[in-house]
Formats: sequence, C-alpha cells, structure tokens
Amino acid sequence: MTEQNLDALAQDMLRIGQQARTAAKTIRNASDAQKSKALLAMADLIEANRSQLQAENAKDIEAAEKNGLETALVDRLKLSDHALNTMATGLRQIAAMPDPVGSLGPTIKRPNGMDVAQMRVPLGVIGIIYESRPNVTIDAAALCLKSGNATILRGGSEAFHSNQALGAIIRQGLIAAGLPEHTVQVIGTTDRGAVGHLITMTDYVDVIVPRGGKGLIARLSAEAKVPLIKHLDGNCHLYIDKDAHVEKAQRIAINAKTYRYGICGTMETLLVHSEIAPAVLPDLAQALQDKGVELRGCEKTQALVSGILPATEADWETEYLAPILAIRIVSSIDQAMDHIAQYSSEHTESIVTENLEAARRFQREVDSSSVYVNLPTCFADGFEYGLGAEIGISTNRLHARGPVGLEGLTTQKWVLTGNGQLRGQN
Amino acid sequence: MTEQNLDALAQDMLRIGQQARTAAKTIRNASDAQKSKALLAMADLIEANRSQLQAENAKDIEAAEKNGLETALVDRLKLSDHALNTMATGLRQIAAMPDPVGSLGPTIKRPNGMDVAQMRVPLGVIGIIYESRPNVTIDAAALCLKSGNATILRGGSEAFHSNQALGAIIRQGLIAAGLPEHTVQVIGTTDRGAVGHLITMTDYVDVIVPRGGKGLIARLSAEAKVPLIKHLDGNCHLYIDKDAHVEKAQRIAINAKTYRYGICGTMETLLVHSEIAPAVLPDLAQALQDKGVELRGCEKTQALVSGILPATEADWETEYLAPILAIRIVSSIDQAMDHIAQYSSEHTESIVTENLEAARRFQREVDSSSVYVNLPTCFADGFEYGLGAEIGISTNRLHARGPVGLEGLTTQKWVLTGNGQLRGQN
Repeated sequence: MTEQNLDALAQDMLRIGQQARTAAKTIRNASDAQKSKALLAMADLIEANRSQLQAENAKDIEAAEKNGLETALVDRLKLSDHALNTMATGLRQIAAMPDPVGSLGPTIKRPNGMDVAQMRVPLGVIGIIYESRPNVTIDAAALCLKSGNATILRGGSEAFHSNQALGAIIRQGLIAAGLPEHTVQVIGTTDRGAVGHLITMTDYVDVIVPRGGKGLIARLSAEAKVPLIKHLDGNCHLYIDKDAHVEKAQRIAINAKTYRYGICGTMETLLVHSEIAPAVLPDLAQALQDKGVELRGCEKTQALVSGILPATEADWETEYLAPILAIRIVSSIDQAMDHIAQYSSEHTESIVTENLEAARRFQREVDSSSVYVNLPTCFADGFEYGLGAEIGISTNRLHARGPVGLEGLTTQKWVLTGNGQLRGQN
Repeated sequence: MTEQNLDALAQDMLRIGQQARTAAKTIRNASDAQKSKALLAMADLIEANRSQLQAENAKDIEAAEKNGLETALVDRLKLSDHALNTMATGLRQIAAMPDPVGSLGPTIKRPNGMDVAQMRVPLGVIGIIYESRPNVTIDAAALCLKSGNATILRGGSEAFHSNQALGAIIRQGLIAAGLPEHTVQVIGTTDRGAVGHLITMTDYVDVIVPRGGKGLIARLSAEAKVPLIKHLDGNCHLYIDKDAHVEKAQRIAINAKTYRYGICGTMETLLVHSEIAPAVLPDLAQALQDKGVELRGCEKTQALVSGILPATEADWETEYLAPILAIRIVSSIDQAMDHIAQYSSEHTESIVTENLEAARRFQREVDSSSVYVNLPTCFADGFEYGLGAEIGISTNRLHARGPVGLEGLTTQKWVLTGNGQLRGQN
C-alpha cells in the first residue's frame, strides 16, 4: 500500500466521522415518531427488496465457499427468507419500543427552591465493529437510531456485499422519514486500516461496541482511544447450596449447561455444597452425561460420580463454550464465593437455595455483572431481562454493565430549573 | 535512572496494585457502620495530630518557598488550623451520608415470574492523580471509602510530606475500624514514572480520576489504558431570551460571571436576543464593568455599549477563567443554540426566559452535561445539586457526567431472583 492510499483512507474516514457528527446533531433531537417511521420503512424495504438482497448475499456466499469457509460460518452469512423476516420483525419491534431520549429521572427540589433532575440523552456517535452475521447491520443500526445516535458500521469482509446492500436499505429508510442519510453509515472499504482510524477518532466517535470473538476485542482494546463497551469472557458458575431444593437444583443445572453450549451465559463450573452433593450429584451427572456432556470433577466429585475425568486448575479457568462441565464440591458458601472470586470472569453467577440469608449474601457479595437466585445462568440476555433488545453484554465496570439495551446507548444530562436563584446569596 | 531502578518502581507499583485489589474485595462488602467508623476516626485523628501534621506540612512549605513557588500556590499548600478543621468536618459529613452500596433500583417482574433489578456496587479500585492541595488526599479517600472502593492516591510532589502524613492518619483510621489498611494507599515516591504505571495497570485499577489542569488531563488521556473520569474545559454560556425578565436576567448574568472567576461553571460568553438587548445590556454592562469585568462584544453589542473591545473568533472559543466576558447579540433562540453547539465545551449552559416553550426547547436540545433555566451557570457543583459532596465534574459522555458524587463512584449489577424458572421452557 502506498502512502497516497493511506492518506486517501484517512481522508475517507475523517469525512465519515464528520458526516456522523453532523448527523448526530439532528438525530438526537428527532421525534420518536420520525425515528419509528424510518425503522418501519426499513422493514418494508427489506421485504420489498428480498431478491436484490439475496443476489448481493449470494456473492458473499460464493466467495466464502470458494475460500473454504466452514459450513457453519457460511450458514451464519446467509440472508435466507427466514433471516430477512427476522430482521423486518426486529425493526418493527424496536420501532414500537419506548424512546429513552428525553425521559426524566426523579426531580429533587433544593432548599433554595430550584429543581434538579437528570434527563436521558443519546451518547452521540457509536461505532460498531462486528464479524460475520449481516443481521448485526440491521439490529445495531436500529437500536442506535431508536436511541437517537448516529452510527458507523464496520462489518466483516466476508459479508461485504450483504452489508453494503443492507446499508442502502437503511439509507433509503432514513431518507423516507426525512432524517439525515448519514445517521447510519456502512463503511465501504474492506481495508483493515479503516478500523484503526475508527477506534482512534475521538473527535468524531463517542463509543465503540465490538461484536466478535476475544481476538477482536483484545486487538481493539490495545489500540483504541475511543471508549469500548466490550464483552470479554463468560466463565459462569452455578452454586448449589446446602439448603437447595434437590430437584429444582438439578433442573436449573441441566438448563444452565444444556440450553445452548455456545452462549456466554452457559454454566462452565458447577459448585456443590458437600452436605447436599450425595443427594444432588449422582442423578444430575447421569442426566448431563445422557445429554452428551463431558464431566470433569474434583476428587470429592470423582468419589461420588463414577467414570469422570479429574478437573485441573485449567478447568476452573476455562470458558468451554462446549458440552464440557467442571464440578467442584465445596464445604461452605464462603468457599463457593472464594472460588468464584478467584476464577469467575464476573459475567453471571447463580445460587440455588431456599435459605433467604444465603441468597441475600450471595447476591450482595458476588461481584459479577449479573447475580441470580434459583435461576440458570443462561438467562443472561437483554430480551430475558425485559430490555426489549440488546446491543450486547458488557463486561465493563463503567457505564453499562451486563446486557445493554436502549438505555445503555444513552447518557444523562443534569437539568436544573429555577426562578432567578443566585449562588452564594441565598 | 538505571534499569534496576525502573524495575524496582514497576515492582512497587505492582505490589500497590495487588494490595489495592485485595483490599477492594473486603471493602466492597464492608458495612456502612464500619466505613463510617473509619471516617470518624480519621476526623478525630486529624484534630489530635494537628501539630505533627503541621510540622510535616512545614517541610513542604519551606521547600516551596525555596523553589520560588508563587504565593497563591504556597497558600493552597498550607495545612492551617482552618484547613484541618475543614477536613475533619468534611469527613464527618461524608460519614453521615447515605451509603450508596447495595441500594436497589425498581424491581421488574418478568412474565415468567422472575424479578429483575439493578443493585449499586463499588467500582473497585480508583486511582486519584492530583496537584497541589493536600485536602484532596482526605476528601478523595473519604468519598472512595464511603462508596466501598479501594483507592490509590498520587498527589503532587510539592505536597509530598503533607500527603504522607495524611496517609498515615487515614491508615490509622482504617485500622481503628478493623478495615484493611491498604484500602487507601498514598504512593510513597515522587518518581514521575509511578503515574505511568498507575494509568496502565488495567488488572488492578478500574478507573482514574485526575484532579488538575488541562495539561495533566491531556498527558494522562494520551497514555492511559485505565478509563478516566475526566474534566476538561468549562466554556459556559448564558442566553438571555427575548421573553426574559429584564432585572432577573441582569442579576443572573452578574452572578454567573462574578460569583468566582476561576471556577469551571463561570459564564464565559453571554448571548442576548436582539429584541431584549437594548433593555438588558447597557445597565448590565455598566454593572459588570463596575465590578472590573472587561467586556468584548460583537458589532451589535458595540453599538449598544460604549467603550468595549471587539470580540473575535478566539473569544468565542476561550474559557477565560478571568474577569473577561464575551458578548454576542443573536436574532433567535436557534442562533443562540447554534452558537452554543459550535463553541461550547458541553459543560454548563443556561437560558433566562419566562417562556415555557423556549425553556423546554433549550433544556432538551442543548447537548451539555448541565442545562439550566433561569439560573446562573456558576451553580455547576455537586454540593449545589444535592450530591452532598463531589469528587469532580465529569465532561465524559460515558458513565458519570457533570458533577460526580458518591453514586458516580459506583456501578450497578443485575440481580435476578426466581424459583426455578428455566430458559426456553416457559
């Protein structure tokens, strides 16, 4: 690549950033009716342009097959009729959600008579960097638009033609609703240098939401100057307390592991109190093994369950995302919480117990972004929490933590209203 | 500096970070009673150790005078009886404030019967990097402790002996309350490399709060890997609308400019609607000039007010922090908001108007961290907002924005409580 090319890319990205910043000033004050109109127009356009979208998508599929991409990954790329219907349905659902922008928290009247409150406002310009699935183009754009933000989307090169075609649909929807076309921009180059610009343009981008594997997140974290709402590991724990209901615990544990192996809320280590282990573990282990889950246990677990592998230090640390489960028997809730404090990725942990004090202690003291009582860890999802949709799950401590919905894409400003109060003179 | 020294510093900082992380695990679950006990013990210790504290402080004062530090800066360093009393009072006030940790937001019951809520929890380990005033050592430590965080403090080298002595008081207070002594650590070296370690130790530090001038913030922003809660410029605007009450507007404008010239909420540009300018401006200008404020105006302003300098582009951009005011006459609320959008640092802006629609528009559409109606911009302060105390004012968009009190030093976790609900099976 010549230096001239680099300059051209830098200039392109600068222009995209400036266009986004300009659009952000309009979209943050757009009415809910106007934003919803754009989202509904996009849904209709997806349905009306099904064959063109699939023709563009076919180019990506062909290239992927030619490049020997795994079948599972090729499937994820496909804009099938079902995938397009799901996108259109998602757009209509997001259009119908309440607009978070402009909502006021409680108003406090100060002793001098002035009112103090906080109002929700958009973050500004959001960059989304994602891999593979082209549905993210629509989902992310819709959530950012509904919450009054401008968006710059950068999808994977495998989905380039699909994303460009979806970007054209989004643009038409914006124009149909009288909103700035640059409210959502899909980057039109596969040059990897574009990402480097996007994550360092602090004047034009307020936050980056990466959607992808650990490798992507690590790369972006190392180089970004723009703050990231990032999602790292989900090494999630379920603890069956001595005061658990045996059958309930077994049902919860089976669901926590087997609902889906590949999601971040999947239980990766099961902790069981030694007093209840003989009643809970043998049947539970059998049920899991019947479903094809490989079990790895501590010594005490091995004594109760036959034919399982020993668990090593590495097992406590691993997010398998696979039909494998590590099991450890502990002597107290404190030992369970110590294990979690040492090995957890602070994503989602759960206790099964009928003891209120144990439930309260666990929920207060475990320092994870989600802490459950009597529920499987696999509930870690914005829809399940009632957020209506999610842009991702944040493992950050600052700003949004856990599942991030529309509210996580906003910030607050202080609004004070008085009648001529003066400082230092009341 | 030899490589061996660098290694020793890196090892020291690593140890400090690890100690903070360990202490954070205890302090986040400490009861309010225990945290308050520590704060009250510190207040008593300051009063009981007045002469030792002043003896240590004298070393800093002597060095500062020897180094030819400005008198105003030397004054800021001084641990006078009054300064020590203020610290002790502040500690007792913070002890009496409600503990934000563990408080629950609204609980939503989901269709499957499980409860979803968010609970406030500490951020973890907070690094504070500050210049000059040793009172920050006490104030910052107290706010971080009350909100359940561990703290690493790095003050200016001018206040080294004072900060070390105050650090010893803090440690004694922690020990007296049975809390880990490493909950608050004052870095014991003036080596500037320590800051470089502190702002990049992402495993051990969750957030950095810098307290200092723009130079410090710029330096830290460039190198930090740990997120910053930062405070940049306060180029604040007051807009006197055509429907303003003339006398009220004049009183608010005078207070906004002259309450204190050096604070970030000081009005730096006054915008006046052309229809009301002849009624408001001449008397207001006279009053400001009588108080020694230098006025710089647009052409229309110059036509109404005699003997003032012309305002240039640079004036619209400048945070004077001095008795200087730029004045511009605008033809509409839209032109006022356009001016603010172009030049404001998004800190604090205010409108003076009796027109409800104008007030609502201004408060919704101006994209600053604080937006007022009929109040002087100089109210930008956590105490005035009812936060009880403030660690600083944030100009970030993510996480805390505007004045940051105890709540801004916490984050939230999701707490879900069920009775054996399973995912995908309800």
